[in-house]
Amino acid sequence: MSWQEKLRNVEPYVAGEQPKIKDLIKLNTNENPYHPGSLVKQAIKDFDEGVLPLYPNPDADGLKSKIASYYELENDQVFLGNGSDEVLALTFLTCFNGEEPILFPDITYSFYPVYCDLYKINFKTIPLNDQFKMNIDDYKQKNSGIIFPNPNAPTGEMIGVDAIEEILKFNQESIVVVDEAYIDFGGTSCVELLKKYDQLLIIQTFSKFRSLAGIRLGYALGNKDIIAKLYDVKNSFNSYPIDSLAQVIGCASFDDTDYIKENANKVIKTREYTVKALKELGFEMTDSYTNFIFVTHPNHDANILFTSLKEKGILVRYFNKPRINQHLRITIGTQEQMEKMVEIIKELLKKD
Amino acid sequence: MSWQEKLRNVEPYVAGEQPKIKDLIKLNTNENPYHPGSLVKQAIKDFDEGVLPLYPNPDADGLKSKIASYYELENDQVFLGNGSDEVLALTFLTCFNGEEPILFPDITYSFYPVYCDLYKINFKTIPLNDQFKMNIDDYKQKNSGIIFPNPNAPTGEMIGVDAIEEILKFNQESIVVVDEAYIDFGGTSCVELLKKYDQLLIIQTFSKFRSLAGIRLGYALGNKDIIAKLYDVKNSFNSYPIDSLAQVIGCASFDDTDYIKENANKVIKTREYTVKALKELGFEMTDSYTNFIFVTHPNHDANILFTSLKEKGILVRYFNKPRINQHLRITIGTQEQMEKMVEIIKELLKKD
Repeated sequence: MSWQEKLRNVEPYVAGEQPKIKDLIKLNTNENPYHPGSLVKQAIKDFDEGVLPLYPNPDADGLKSKIASYYELENDQVFLGNGSDEVLALTFLTCFNGEEPILFPDITYSFYPVYCDLYKINFKTIPLNDQFKMNIDDYKQKNSGIIFPNPNAPTGEMIGVDAIEEILKFNQESIVVVDEAYIDFGGTSCVELLKKYDQLLIIQTFSKFRSLAGIRLGYALGNKDIIAKLYDVKNSFNSYPIDSLAQVIGCASFDDTDYIKENANKVIKTREYTVKALKELGFEMTDSYTNFIFVTHPNHDANILFTSLKEKGILVRYFNKPRINQHLRITIGTQEQMEKMVEIIKELLKKD
Repeated sequence: MSWQEKLRNVEPYVAGEQPKIKDLIKLNTNENPYHPGSLVKQAIKDFDEGVLPLYPNPDADGLKSKIASYYELENDQVFLGNGSDEVLALTFLTCFNGEEPILFPDITYSFYPVYCDLYKINFKTIPLNDQFKMNIDDYKQKNSGIIFPNPNAPTGEMIGVDAIEEILKFNQESIVVVDEAYIDFGGTSCVELLKKYDQLLIIQTFSKFRSLAGIRLGYALGNKDIIAKLYDVKNSFNSYPIDSLAQVIGCASFDDTDYIKENANKVIKTREYTVKALKELGFEMTDSYTNFIFVTHPNHDANILFTSLKEKGILVRYFNKPRINQHLRITIGTQEQMEKMVEIIKELLKKD
């Protein structure tokens, strides 16, 4: 057996591109268009680089307690990671060790099947209905775990707390993970269900609502037994995943939540504007509770539209995948950016 | 099967403590006592937090090419991770997928067996000899991979490039990983062997030589096929493990290598002082090529000495493990710190 044969073969996740093109309007990876806040700026400015020779606090305790108190939870109910992608990766490894397949929607965050491939976890995808909505009854079958984003991505659709409770009630023997990356753009978190359901785990991120995709912070909220197992696995992987600067930046962000909420309100308002404007141009779309919209046009090919927009300096996300290859996922930027996009789309539709 | 039974059980690695005690002389986790440099300070000061809403460059390309050019390698021969612990974790998952056990010394970095437990990798430990040295012939047996730190930790002992080549010559069908976390305190890197041996992977860190344990950066150097597989696995785990600030800080550190080498020379000089002073007090020790020493005293119990030192405000590392439970691992701090430690040890030995 050669050394080459001892290497692991996996098909990695492919994130949206991060091109360096001048004046590009970047609407392809659901980034927040607004500044992370003056307290974050100040925290970086005040940072004493003299502490950098020392290892950071391994479990980011200061930040952990800020998050716990924000959600009115105990410190041992919060798990922190290097972005919610790392939190998700460690969750798959920690929580999904049963014999039955785990369940998630057929159209969802495309990292989920990649984690399953990496860890050799058996999974079964559950089709969304024709309107890209989850059918709750489909999650009433044998499984070793359930995971879905709420709101879902790339559809933007949301299910209510009552629907999540129905899933939890049926699935008392599996861990149910609700990935709330986009919850703060008008959705309702199911965090209150943690009081009633020990097998619920909620995952959130600093990358969207908090405008901190560049700093890599994510977290899980759950009962202390699951959280403790997540820390055991994390401490079998990397003792110090969150650096000293990221810890103070995360704290500053939680201190600036009022400002950040104002930004989210601006995003929501601009989303409403964009939805209305694109509907007037004949686009059809799901109901979005996120900082992106998921649109299709009955008379215009999505891939051609994607390419034409890119040529005009507007980058959106196109997925060449079954069921959604006539859709575009468009991140909500600033009002100005979206008005410009609407103008350009108007011209493109005329030309065709 | 309850949800509890679907949770993974692992025995995590336990890092040296990071206590917050005023005026503590912290010599327990091999941190560098010197400042990371004025260019790092400047990079943080100049950082534009306005980029933080955007995801970082996923593979830290700028930093990668700085590292490649420093070692006279190609960019595709460098893999970057969130500290060398993450690089090691992903290396175990990527490179050690054979049927035979992998090999590493019985006394070594205690994270290695933890990774094996996490990923269910079969391993066999190879005893160091009575002087805590590696016997090269012991690594001439069937295996699915070999890993050892050089210099080794916690012993500080080093093997030469010729000895590493002997291991590589015999093991043409396994990946041989040389963990060079401590190489820059007087050791000789085996990086030149990358030209001759495709199955060699070298791992280094920013945490020791570069005084940046707080920022979490590590890297692997190897042939492009192994590096590509590491990126595939990394991209199946976390798209963006290295945040935007860490990327610019890492670059600044590489631009300041001359200053950093001066610090390493100070550490080496202080190590020589400490070795001489402790030998005069009757201590015995291995030959250290690192920023720590590994000492024992024929007439004084190591654990008692550890506790007495801690009471006096000096924290060193004690491992309650077979073969080394009469040793202390002492990080080399500043000259002033070590002189104080020697004084305190003198007093403690008198009392006994």
